[in-house]
Formats: sequence, structure tokens, C-alpha cells
Amino acid sequence: MIEHQDRALQVALEYYGAWASKDLEQTMSFIADDVVCDAPAGRIEGARAYRGFLESFFQLLERAELIASFGDDETAMLLYDNETVPVPSAPSVGHFTVQDGKITRIRFIFDRVPYEAAARTRQAL
Amino acid sequence: MIEHQDRALQVALEYYGAWASKDLEQTMSFIADDVVCDAPAGRIEGARAYRGFLESFFQLLERAELIASFGDDETAMLLYDNETVPVPSAPSVGHFTVQDGKITRIRFIFDRVPYEAAARTRQAL
Repeated sequence: MIEHQDRALQVALEYYGAWASKDLEQTMSFIADDVVCDAPAGRIEGARAYRGFLESFFQLLERAELIASFGDDETAMLLYDNETVPVPSAPSVGHFTVQDGKITRIRFIFDRVPYEAAARTRQAL
Repeated sequence: MIEHQDRALQVALEYYGAWASKDLEQTMSFIADDVVCDAPAGRIEGARAYRGFLESFFQLLERAELIASFGDDETAMLLYDNETVPVPSAPSVGHFTVQDGKITRIRFIFDRVPYEAAARTRQAL
């Protein structure tokens, strides 16, 4: 019998694949109804709010490249580089907690400064 | 014979322990002479420049709390929350590449916005 010891990592990687393809329904299929997500700009609570957050971000995302992925049965951590409309390279980390195949808790870590600088440039044009 | 498969993680955790204690010499003992570090503000090259970067940061660091750590023989990724003089909670990630027991490559990911906001507040006082 093969004992998998990285179930959370597998879910996080499947989530990431759907997310990088900007497949909203597939991405949301991995998200628990009561998901809690801490992003640099603040906390997002519940699948409905998270869907809105994804919809906004998918409009900016051009491409994502996975740099590193680690995890075990409960949690996983992914490092990826986002190419977005305003920022050509935005290294970002997601830390995911998984229960019963669904993501219940997310922490996103990335630097908002390049996004804010791009927004100021757009305003100045 | 026990086969360790997480040598990079062990080095990263020892580095982190020294770093969280603000032990400059011990922290630097894990850094390769030709280290390359990509931080949000830019690239730091070489152990001498990295030592200067640490000295500056240690003046701000009050406490660090490790949230998650993963790794294998080549790389490791740590998520921790920094309590600093200007910012009470700054979730941060380090991704480390280790060769022959020394850290040769680091990527740091954190949000600079709270640090910049704190700097503006200080200037306004």
C-alpha cells in the first residue's frame, strides 16, 4: 500500500494549475465555503468574496511560473512568479491549509510596492 | 543507516535560529561567500554586502515567529512573521538554496508597503 504524505501539496498544486490557467470554476472547486485568506491588503472571508478577488486578479494575470512547491498532508507552500498587466515580475508565495480536499486557509505574501508604483504611473499618464 | 533528505532544510533552520537571535557571526557562518540574495528592494551580492544588510535589519527586528518550514536536500522555504520596530507584523518568506552546507541563493518575499507607510508616518511627526 502506498501511503501518500503530501495530500495538501497535491491539492495546492491542482489549485495552482487551475488558477494559472485562469479557470475560475476549477479554481473555486478547491476552495472551502468558509475559506479565510490573509492577503497583504487584508483578510478575505468566505468563498463568495474569494471568487470576487480571483475575478479581479484574473484580469491582471498574464502568466505564472512555479518556482518551488513543498507540502505535507495538512499544509503546502508554493513560490511562483506572476507576470501581470501592471508588473512584469512579482514573486509571490501562497501558504495553504487543506482539510478534506479543500483549501480552508490561505496566506498570500508578495510585495505591493511594484503594483502601487504602476498604479501611480497610470494615474500620471 | 539513516538517509537524511532534508539537508537544505536543516541548514535553513539553523540559519533562521541564529538570525532570529540576531547572532550576526552565527548567521553569517551559513552564508556562502558568493551568496546572491533577491529581496523586494533589489539584489544583494556577496557575503560582505549581505552582512551589511543583516546589520541594518537586526536594528529593526524585535522578534520573529516561525510559521512554516519545508525543504529537501537542495532548497528550503520558511514562512515567518517579523515583529519589527516600524511594523508589528510582517509575514515574510525566505527561499534558500544550499550547497555544501552553505546558503548560496536567497529570495525574500514580503510586502514593503507597511514599512513605507511607517517611514512616512515618522517623517510626518
